[in-house]
Amino acid sequence: MENTFVLKYGGTSVGTTDRIKNIADQLIARKQKGHNLIVVVSAMGKSTDELIRLTKEISDNPCKRDMDMLLATGEQVSISLLSIAIKELGYKAVSLTGLQAGIETCTTHSKARINRIREDRIISHLKEDEIVVVAGFQGVNENGDITTLGRGGSDTTAVSIAAVIGCPCEIYTDVDGVYSVDPRVYPEAKKLDSINYDEMLEMASTGAGILETRAIEMGHKYKVPIYIALSTGEFPGTYIKEYDQAMEKKVVTGMTIEENCLMISISMVPFESKNISRIFAKLAENNILVDMISQTAPHDHFVSVSFTTLRDDKEAVHRVLNELSTEIEGIQVYMDESLVKLSVVGIGMISQSGVAATLFDILADNEIDFLQVTTSEISISYTIHKTDMDKAVHVIAESFDL
Amino acid sequence: MENTFVLKYGGTSVGTTDRIKNIADQLIARKQKGHNLIVVVSAMGKSTDELIRLTKEISDNPCKRDMDMLLATGEQVSISLLSIAIKELGYKAVSLTGLQAGIETCTTHSKARINRIREDRIISHLKEDEIVVVAGFQGVNENGDITTLGRGGSDTTAVSIAAVIGCPCEIYTDVDGVYSVDPRVYPEAKKLDSINYDEMLEMASTGAGILETRAIEMGHKYKVPIYIALSTGEFPGTYIKEYDQAMEKKVVTGMTIEENCLMISISMVPFESKNISRIFAKLAENNILVDMISQTAPHDHFVSVSFTTLRDDKEAVHRVLNELSTEIEGIQVYMDESLVKLSVVGIGMISQSGVAATLFDILADNEIDFLQVTTSEISISYTIHKTDMDKAVHVIAESFDL
Repeated sequence: MENTFVLKYGGTSVGTTDRIKNIADQLIARKQKGHNLIVVVSAMGKSTDELIRLTKEISDNPCKRDMDMLLATGEQVSISLLSIAIKELGYKAVSLTGLQAGIETCTTHSKARINRIREDRIISHLKEDEIVVVAGFQGVNENGDITTLGRGGSDTTAVSIAAVIGCPCEIYTDVDGVYSVDPRVYPEAKKLDSINYDEMLEMASTGAGILETRAIEMGHKYKVPIYIALSTGEFPGTYIKEYDQAMEKKVVTGMTIEENCLMISISMVPFESKNISRIFAKLAENNILVDMISQTAPHDHFVSVSFTTLRDDKEAVHRVLNELSTEIEGIQVYMDESLVKLSVVGIGMISQSGVAATLFDILADNEIDFLQVTTSEISISYTIHKTDMDKAVHVIAESFDL
Repeated sequence: MENTFVLKYGGTSVGTTDRIKNIADQLIARKQKGHNLIVVVSAMGKSTDELIRLTKEISDNPCKRDMDMLLATGEQVSISLLSIAIKELGYKAVSLTGLQAGIETCTTHSKARINRIREDRIISHLKEDEIVVVAGFQGVNENGDITTLGRGGSDTTAVSIAAVIGCPCEIYTDVDGVYSVDPRVYPEAKKLDSINYDEMLEMASTGAGILETRAIEMGHKYKVPIYIALSTGEFPGTYIKEYDQAMEKKVVTGMTIEENCLMISISMVPFESKNISRIFAKLAENNILVDMISQTAPHDHFVSVSFTTLRDDKEAVHRVLNELSTEIEGIQVYMDESLVKLSVVGIGMISQSGVAATLFDILADNEIDFLQVTTSEISISYTIHKTDMDKAVHVIAESFDL
C-alpha cells in the first residue's frame, strides 16, 4: 500500500496517559496527511520493572515461558490505551497483540527470533482505514505460547513489520537522532543526517545503544529505510539507509566509546591450536561475549592472546580463567579494568586507506598509548587507558570533524 | 480423569505475592494427595481498578474491544506468577490464557458468553502431571479477539471447565460459605452445609452476591458439584449440589435482603394490554432490570401495576416514566425508595404449602406491613419498609431456625 509507515514508540514515550494522548495527536496529524499507519509500542515506562519486582518476591529463577507470559501484558496494556486514545479523537484504530498481528517466532522463550510475519490481518485493518496498533517485543510460537524477543525487541518488531509490508520505519525514542560521538562524552558532537546500515551496525555493536543490532540487521537485509527521532517530533532525526554517493564524502562517520570494558591477556600459552580454541570454547560455554581478539606470533613455542569482554562478566571470566590455569599448564593471566574501547567508524574507510595511518599519528602526537588495535572494513578499534579517554575523543573528533 | 478438581481463587486471594505463595502451598498439599488440579484465577486485588483508572484519564467511553484487551492482562499476570510460585516449590505447572485454555466465546465484548471449551490442551497438560493454571474471566471469539465474561466471569470460567472435564469445582473466596441469612444483617445466621442449585440461584438473584447466577446456572445444567469456602481453607464451606432427601427436612433454607431497592407504582392505567406491555418494553429498551411485578385486577377500566428495580437505576427510571406520562394519558406515578426486598427461599416449599401462611402470620403478629408479595415455586418475596427490616429478619430467622 502506498503511503504506509511503521512508527515505533518506546516505553518512555508511552509512560503516562498524557504522553499516550500526545502520541494519538501526532498520529492523527499524520493520518490527516493521508498516511496509513502501523504503530508499534512498548510497555509503559516502569511497568516491566514492576512485574519483574513482583516475580523476584516469588522466585530467583522463574520459568522463562511464564516470564514471557507475564511481561507480554505490558505491551498489551499500551496498545489498548493508545487505541482508546485514538478513538477518543474520532479516528479508527485497532489494537493487536503479537499473536493477532501474526508475529510468529521460534520457541526460545525470552529471546525468540521472528520466523515469519503473517501480515494479512494488519493489511486488512489498514484497508479499513484503521490505525493499526501492534504490541512490540512479543510474538507467538508454534505451540501457541507467547514469546518475547529480548532486549530491543520492539525495535525488531517494528522493522520486521516494515520489511514485510515494504515501507519505511520510524523509531521514536528519547534521543533525537544518531550522533557522531556520544554527546554525554563529547558535547560538541554533531547529529548525523544519515548513516548507512553497516556504519550503524558498527556504532551499535560498539556501544551506541540507540537501536538494537538485530533491528539494524533486519533493516539492512530487507532494505527498510529507518528514521530515528525524538518522540515529541521536535527536531529532525537521523536516517539509516543504504549507502549512497553523498555519504562517501566523509571518511569517518562516528566514534563510539565502550567504558564497560575488561581486557584479558593470557601469555605463555604452549603453541598448539587446540589450546587457543580451548580457551575460547570455554568462554563461550559460559556465555561470555568476547571482543577484540588479538594474538601475537609464536615466540619460543609460546603465544600470547588478548581479548576484551564486558566488565559486568568479571566474576564469570575469573572463574573460567582459574579453571584454564589448571588445564593448560604454565599460562599466565593478566586482567586490566582501567581501559576503555574506542572505535572509529566510517564507510569511507573502505576506499580511503589513510585513515588508520592518520589515527596512529593522532594518538602518537598526543602521547596516547593503546594496548590493542583491531580493524574491520569500516572501523578501527583501540583499547586505551581510561585516563586518556577524554583527550583521545577530543583530538579524534576534531581531526575528523565529528 | 479420576481425582480431578477445578479450584478457583478470586482477586483478594491472589492480591499479593505472599498470598500467591500461600495458594501454591495449598495446591502442592492437594497434589500430594494425588489430585489432578486445574486452577482458575482472577486478577490481583486492585489491579483491574488501576487499569480502569488509567482508561478514565483517556476516555469516558472506551471501546469495549480495547477494554477487554486491557483488562485481560490482569488475569495473565496472576497465572504467570502462580505458575512461577508452584515451580519454585519443585512441582510442574503451566499457565494458560483463556485462548490457550480453549475458552471460545461469542463476539459480545465485556460480557461474552462461553460457546464452547476445547479442553484438549488442558487435558494433555494434566496428563503431563502439571498443575494447569487458567486465566479466569477471559476467552477468545471467532475473530481471534480477546473477550471478557463480565461480572463474576472467573466463577463462570471455573464451573464451565469443571462441566466439560466432568469434575467438581471449588470456589475459594473471602467468605467462608453460604449463610441462611447475610451475617452482616443477622449475625446469628447459620452457615449451610449444603444448598441445592435452585435455592442458591434464588439466593443469588435476590441479593446474596457470593456466586454469580451464570456460574450457578452452568453448574446446575451440567450437574457440577460446587464447593464454596474461604481461600485460607480454615473452615468447612458450603456445597452446592443437586437436591437430595436430606435437604428436604428443612422447609426454609435461607433468607436474602436486597437493600438497593426502588418500588414504582403506576396507577390509573387505561385497561388495555398494550399499555402494560408498552411500559415494560420501554423499561427493557433502557436496560432497566425489573423485578417483583404485581398487577391488580381492573377497576372502572383502570389498572394499577407495581414493580421493583435497583435504586441505582433511579435516574433512568425517572426519565422513562416521564416519557410514559406523555404517551399514556392520565397515568399516575409513585416511587418509593424507603423499601427493602426480603426473600425467603427453600426447596421444601414445593411440597409443604404452609410456609406462605406461616410467613403472613409472622408478619401480622409483629405488625410488619408489606407493600408487595410475589412467589416462585421455592421462594416468597416481600417489599417492606426499611424501618421494619431488622425486626422482620429476626422474627423470620428465629421461626425457621436460620
